[in-house]
Amino acid sequence: MNDVIATILNHRSIRQFEDRPLSDEQINTIVSCAQAAATSSFIQAYSIIGVKDKEKKRKLAELTGNQEYVEKNGHFFVFCSDLFRHTVVGKREQKQVTATLESTEKFMVALIDTSLAAQNAAVAAESLGLGICYIGGIRNHLEEVKRLLNIPDRVIPLFGLAVGYPAHLTDKKPRLPFAHVYHEDEYEQDMERFNHQLDDYDQLISNYYQTRTNGQRKDRWTEQIANMLSKPTRMYMKEFIQKNKLDLH
Amino acid sequence: MNDVIATILNHRSIRQFEDRPLSDEQINTIVSCAQAAATSSFIQAYSIIGVKDKEKKRKLAELTGNQEYVEKNGHFFVFCSDLFRHTVVGKREQKQVTATLESTEKFMVALIDTSLAAQNAAVAAESLGLGICYIGGIRNHLEEVKRLLNIPDRVIPLFGLAVGYPAHLTDKKPRLPFAHVYHEDEYEQDMERFNHQLDDYDQLISNYYQTRTNGQRKDRWTEQIANMLSKPTRMYMKEFIQKNKLDLH
Repeated sequence: MNDVIATILNHRSIRQFEDRPLSDEQINTIVSCAQAAATSSFIQAYSIIGVKDKEKKRKLAELTGNQEYVEKNGHFFVFCSDLFRHTVVGKREQKQVTATLESTEKFMVALIDTSLAAQNAAVAAESLGLGICYIGGIRNHLEEVKRLLNIPDRVIPLFGLAVGYPAHLTDKKPRLPFAHVYHEDEYEQDMERFNHQLDDYDQLISNYYQTRTNGQRKDRWTEQIANMLSKPTRMYMKEFIQKNKLDLH
Repeated sequence: MNDVIATILNHRSIRQFEDRPLSDEQINTIVSCAQAAATSSFIQAYSIIGVKDKEKKRKLAELTGNQEYVEKNGHFFVFCSDLFRHTVVGKREQKQVTATLESTEKFMVALIDTSLAAQNAAVAAESLGLGICYIGGIRNHLEEVKRLLNIPDRVIPLFGLAVGYPAHLTDKKPRLPFAHVYHEDEYEQDMERFNHQLDDYDQLISNYYQTRTNGQRKDRWTEQIANMLSKPTRMYMKEFIQKNKLDLH
């Protein structure tokens, strides 16, 4: 196994960091790695906002659901899908680009571009001995996050990435069975096998929690996920996205 | 610079592969690396379809705009955002999950999850000396792709990933200036600086093309992107996505 694969397979989310900021060189390396990711038709539809200001970090921690590690880390990145840049590009070149920028297709492209870049950043950070945690809680209050960071239309803060020196190592959570996620030549058609795989995985996850909590927690994966999905969250999203002139048609 | 960062920074898209299939072990490693990526609230909202069947690969090459490297490569992966699995999870646990699964928020989560996984796969493949190319052309004819690979509702083939032994090394394309993509504490507010950065980048890209084509091509980045954006493509996407019971509210 080479170092790259070892780094990738060793990922776990870190939620407690030392009080030690990243150096400018580390930030530079992480962002450069993000930028090296593939980008759809060279569109480069993302921006990254690094938040250093203490008051802004405190406010972001509050907005993301009082997650302490949003405030206390080595550096906090906000990954934004960005089609504002392309609004400017259209103006510079006097081309009609609005129909494209407002399409569902380009909304998807921007989300994909941003996520590919972010994962490069995450892997790069981990290779430097740093820990990372993605912060989806950024999407709890997007209006407020946009105002706090002065973010223009057609730019969506998709998630945060807290990076820093790990103060507490967590366990790796086992993933869905390989055969459940990887299909050959067509999507799994046998629903009995499909459900058996989920049964096996439920057992694995239940054991995982039991071992780690001395039996206090033993929820299965499907149980945990069904509970989560039964409570709709962030249901303002469609309105917010469309107000930002994205995903309209 | 460590091996991980060197691998990431060395990325370029490969569009010509040797006629040499990946081993099962390589495929296994690449998919396991994909699965090791972070996932929003442990939702694991993606599936990967590996296409080996020659006729299906030929057909996919046709559907993606006659891209030869979709047919001729070491292995072809189709990365799908997947909330079908979670429809099944809801049924198994007898929970009402439809409102959540049909929300714009979960559509976004599934796209992000899938893309994080894919980028891990891409980096892992490159670390094995393989080349990769993302294939957004998968989205040209999604109905047909879904039929070809027997893909259920709430699963969207987002992009392909062609992987193989490079037969032809390409150049790395320079990215947008660091300062244009990375902002500190707030999004860039100075539009003059913003435009200057684009001017500089336009010059860089124009020189890049001129050098590589003996002066035959010299388009600037903003020119290239504005031209691309002025021709709306895949405008059926919204209807297609909503027909797949996603991004409805």
